[in-house]
Amino acid sequence: MKTVLLIGIGAGNPDYVTMQAVKALNEADVFFFLDKGQEKEDLINLRRTICERFIEDKSYRIVEVPGPVRDVEAPDYKSGVQAWHRDKAKIFSDLIGNELADGEVGAFLVWGDPSLYDSTVRVIEHIIAEGLLAFEYKIIPGITSVQALAAEHKIALNPIGEPVHITTGRRLNEGLPDGVDTAVVMLDNGSGLRALIDEDVDIFWGAYLGTPDQVLISGKLKECVEAIEEARSEERKRKGWIMDTYLLRRKPRP
Amino acid sequence: MKTVLLIGIGAGNPDYVTMQAVKALNEADVFFFLDKGQEKEDLINLRRTICERFIEDKSYRIVEVPGPVRDVEAPDYKSGVQAWHRDKAKIFSDLIGNELADGEVGAFLVWGDPSLYDSTVRVIEHIIAEGLLAFEYKIIPGITSVQALAAEHKIALNPIGEPVHITTGRRLNEGLPDGVDTAVVMLDNGSGLRALIDEDVDIFWGAYLGTPDQVLISGKLKECVEAIEEARSEERKRKGWIMDTYLLRRKPRP
Repeated sequence: MKTVLLIGIGAGNPDYVTMQAVKALNEADVFFFLDKGQEKEDLINLRRTICERFIEDKSYRIVEVPGPVRDVEAPDYKSGVQAWHRDKAKIFSDLIGNELADGEVGAFLVWGDPSLYDSTVRVIEHIIAEGLLAFEYKIIPGITSVQALAAEHKIALNPIGEPVHITTGRRLNEGLPDGVDTAVVMLDNGSGLRALIDEDVDIFWGAYLGTPDQVLISGKLKECVEAIEEARSEERKRKGWIMDTYLLRRKPRP
Repeated sequence: MKTVLLIGIGAGNPDYVTMQAVKALNEADVFFFLDKGQEKEDLINLRRTICERFIEDKSYRIVEVPGPVRDVEAPDYKSGVQAWHRDKAKIFSDLIGNELADGEVGAFLVWGDPSLYDSTVRVIEHIIAEGLLAFEYKIIPGITSVQALAAEHKIALNPIGEPVHITTGRRLNEGLPDGVDTAVVMLDNGSGLRALIDEDVDIFWGAYLGTPDQVLISGKLKECVEAIEEARSEERKRKGWIMDTYLLRRKPRP
């Protein structure tokens, strides 16, 4: 039997890896890295750093393949993502089928946590549903950028006894549901930052969380949105890419 | 200067601790344990296990004090919690003031992650706002039961591009907001399990996640709610306490 591990490596700081992840890293014979293009080379490097720092026996192999590109001009967001997952499933199937011998353990290192806005679990489930490949798999959770954001700003995500809503920039632009006054926003290209600009909202924003490049800004949304937009554009220019997350706290309406 | 560390130790499995937490554990001179009564003795023991397993120099001290009890008959939930936080702040102030020498590092070990349904950050901020004690503090994120739930059930929390709502049993009983079809429920005494029983909902339920006692049940809510209620009551009888979490996925209404 082959085994596949989906290892959450946390968001940014190599020390976010858990002991469970370190054990899993040390069980793997092969690591599969999907190259996402130059833009995210830093993220590939973080994966290498984690392997080098935490694996004791250096005899593991790394297989690096180009990742599929999501068709941003697909008729709608969801069908574009689904096609992208099918392309990924083809690549993952080839990797598990051809690069992993029987009895071996292969690992995908997942940025953050495999359960939150990551396609790996869905892609693996798609391959299993096809029934063409037999393997066992296991998921190892990791620290998300949401948790890094809260820790670095020293805030609780939820007000006492209240819910927390985790959403995307795209969905934020459609407004928050009634009764939801705390939202964490991920995958925003910047367009969601002004979605609630006319309301009484506090923002806790962070980019490159947990890394030496980390930038934090917080305050009244109205008063600091420009500083955040400026930081986004400057940092993106400087590093070639940006990953940011933020929490919005809206004053509950009576 | 004194330093206080709020260390997220993850939910259940000692191997959920991160490398960052291990480093923090090894920096601490004193650990403050709040005794929550016999019911949660297992949780106190987990803290001891983590200290023993991951700290190299065993010269640390443990100061154990009785935790305050929340007045469940307070006029409303929020004011009851706030009074409980004030009691906790008094205890924490005494610990930091009297049990921690200048230059020493004290640590509170927080179950799960300090950012999610935990009072420690709020209590520490309350003490700082009072201005009577000077200390630095730092938060180390930990794996939550939400992440353990997703990893053990091998599911993604969010449907593609959709939000995830993290809420409490109490709030679930008031219904989910419009447009919210995925909810993770924490702090439920069991009363929330049937809140959406008349709708087309899948449930992924887990108790004692990450521990050897872990129990998982999943399926159509209607079809497995009785099995879950039975497991809750049997496990609670057997162990004296229960901690469970679940994810609900509702078929989106057109």
